[in-house]
Amino acid sequence: MSAHVRVPEQAGVPAVPDTDAVVAVVEAVRLRAPLVQCITNSVVTGFTANVLLAAGAAPAMVDITGEAGPFAAVASALLVNLGTPTPEQRAAAVEAVTAATDAGTPWVLDPVAVGALPIRTSLAKDLAARRPTVVRGNASEIIALAGDGAGGRGVDSTSTAGEALPAARSLVTAGVGAVAVSGERDVVTDGSRVATLTGGDPLLTRVTGTGCALGALVAACAAVTDDALLAALTASAWIGAAAEIAVPAAHGPGSFAVGLIDALATLDGTALADRVRIS
Amino acid sequence: MSAHVRVPEQAGVPAVPDTDAVVAVVEAVRLRAPLVQCITNSVVTGFTANVLLAAGAAPAMVDITGEAGPFAAVASALLVNLGTPTPEQRAAAVEAVTAATDAGTPWVLDPVAVGALPIRTSLAKDLAARRPTVVRGNASEIIALAGDGAGGRGVDSTSTAGEALPAARSLVTAGVGAVAVSGERDVVTDGSRVATLTGGDPLLTRVTGTGCALGALVAACAAVTDDALLAALTASAWIGAAAEIAVPAAHGPGSFAVGLIDALATLDGTALADRVRIS
Amino acid sequence: MSAHVRVPEQAGVPAVPDTDAVVAVVEAVRLRAPLVQCITNSVVTGFTANVLLAAGAAPAMVDITGEAGPFAAVASALLVNLGTPTPEQRAAAVEAVTAATDAGTPWVLDPVAVGALPIRTSLAKDLAARRPTVVRGNASEIIALAGDGAGGRGVDSTSTAGEALPAARSLVTAGVGAVAVSGERDVVTDGSRVATLTGGDPLLTRVTGTGCALGALVAACAAVTDDALLAALTASAWIGAAAEIAVPAAHGPGSFAVGLIDALATLDGTALADRVRIS
Repeated sequence: MSAHVRVPEQAGVPAVPDTDAVVAVVEAVRLRAPLVQCITNSVVTGFTANVLLAAGAAPAMVDITGEAGPFAAVASALLVNLGTPTPEQRAAAVEAVTAATDAGTPWVLDPVAVGALPIRTSLAKDLAARRPTVVRGNASEIIALAGDGAGGRGVDSTSTAGEALPAARSLVTAGVGAVAVSGERDVVTDGSRVATLTGGDPLLTRVTGTGCALGALVAACAAVTDDALLAALTASAWIGAAAEIAVPAAHGPGSFAVGLIDALATLDGTALADRVRIS
Repeated sequence: MSAHVRVPEQAGVPAVPDTDAVVAVVEAVRLRAPLVQCITNSVVTGFTANVLLAAGAAPAMVDITGEAGPFAAVASALLVNLGTPTPEQRAAAVEAVTAATDAGTPWVLDPVAVGALPIRTSLAKDLAARRPTVVRGNASEIIALAGDGAGGRGVDSTSTAGEALPAARSLVTAGVGAVAVSGERDVVTDGSRVATLTGGDPLLTRVTGTGCALGALVAACAAVTDDALLAALTASAWIGAAAEIAVPAAHGPGSFAVGLIDALATLDGTALADRVRIS
Repeated sequence: MSAHVRVPEQAGVPAVPDTDAVVAVVEAVRLRAPLVQCITNSVVTGFTANVLLAAGAAPAMVDITGEAGPFAAVASALLVNLGTPTPEQRAAAVEAVTAATDAGTPWVLDPVAVGALPIRTSLAKDLAARRPTVVRGNASEIIALAGDGAGGRGVDSTSTAGEALPAARSLVTAGVGAVAVSGERDVVTDGSRVATLTGGDPLLTRVTGTGCALGALVAACAAVTDDALLAALTASAWIGAAAEIAVPAAHGPGSFAVGLIDALATLDGTALADRVRIS
């Protein structure tokens, strides 16, 4: 997987990506239509696939043993989301991650609700040690994954993104490419850089699967750049901008979710650039 | 789980709830955001989560063994829906119900398509004997669960809600808190009271998962009141009122489903009170 | 299952169905509300059920062992879609197909992503040998199923419908009633006849599950006619016409999907006849 979008270095360290880099990743996803294998939870499969299709990527939910591994070896990127991890999916996740690692396929770990729940927490810690390209979660999940907390209540976070930064750094130290902490502000770090993104809309928390679909979109972006931080940042900016476009016409969370899919598909580089606020 | 909404008693028996009580439960759900664990079928997971989020509750689909039990002990309420009961889900349901019973977590049983199908029918009868807070189903399902009939064809009912009242009463006698029979009219009983609700719209039958989401909403309401009949009645009234609000702008079942989610989130006490017709 | 819609024969061979025959099948589905058992993938369950409900059919996702067989014996039609074939679903599919064959229930095989993936490819070839009423897939899938190719990448096709015609013919020779190849043009053959359908819209490829839902709609149509080619042709025409109706009001794939469901439910015979282009 060769990088198609690169960020210039400053004194040997890559700069925090600017808006141009984010727009370049979006355009590369649309141009290359990366094949994104998703091992994800039963609540969000359809929404996740529609988000990826709207973004121009090609989703493939290949999540059974005997197929998950061979597919991860040829996919453009892999998402492992632990929202409803049946025994079959847990075995398929390990198979897929092993094959992705061998093949150099970038992969994203979304440790949904770890900390509070024992089966997934154990698996998530094992997978996090296998050097995922990106880990994406809310603050409570990132803190729990790094071993520093007991997690939130289910998929909700009881901490802010900033509070999770030390935990995110420790995951990077342990081998994760970049950690994206979702919240009112999104914070992404790869150890050497920390980028903060504002924007989006509270309605995103009233539609199921927006966080899970973000994880899938990070995987799509990781297929077109070797810069893990840039991939995570772009996916957050893309969904945030689409949310801002969808809000004015929404009458509630139902029509907002529809408009979000529309906006993900139709927003152009200018509309995106106008809404990206990185610091 | 202490009661937050109570209905006054008349001569030692609680009165049939009035519109004020229904509005109070809706407001309590929005205020307290109960954490509703859902063990439900693969068709409706996303829609159910979106209905709960629109209502102000926090859905959590925790449906694997090893996690379903511990989570049921801390959740605000539990839904067990038997629409697509895989072996893993069946074991998780038993584990969750056992833990919910021990912890005093209110729980709702939705015996989808029992009667016609052997595996779920056996499990549903076992679970119904464990004193669920509410059982919600269509008339054929309630009749089959009580042992009096052979069920409908799949999820459709071949009987009316009124015809299922004797079966509902026998379930209450056996220990169920309240039984909600969905149909053109919804009938709810807890043995001492029988409440009938008219309203809603036939389009509800053209969108998959409206009945299943109703079961989840009953669970959310049961988290904020100890009155099982009131919880069931409120959930039916809430969805029925939202449906009536959504119909005028709908061009068919697709846009109706979107508008239903919007209306669940946005309707206020007055709009609800105007549409509740309890007898 | 007696035929309700028949196509006149010409010199002992049934004619390629005309628009009137297609409209008659649509009306028969709406009148009879066939009970369509779906064993399908976790991504599209909700959308598939909503498409069937919009069409006037009654979906039932009965996909566990011990129930799949008994239900297939009484269902109006059966769909087996191999998109996410867990071990439980694979066993249920074999059980259901065996019972459907014994009972004379028409059934449709949708061999999602066969060729590229080993587990489903083996199962699909076994099932295809059991004489399904209709096989529906994209060109790569049909070619792979017939044993002539390595398949596409996931659910995408790398071949055109016309290129798959020899493979489709060989499946018919092996006992399949009719083969429907989906693509920019849809091609359907039952060996003696080849029908080509133009129309639809590229937005159909930007919404997940439109192909899978088409397979389910083929099953619904197969419940009301013994002419397998007519059933497949009608389902394609129905979705294609609904897509054409939905496009003008769509702002992207999100609102298009909503409008598609609306149009499936509301289009009348004239609106359909105006948009059917069979050659």
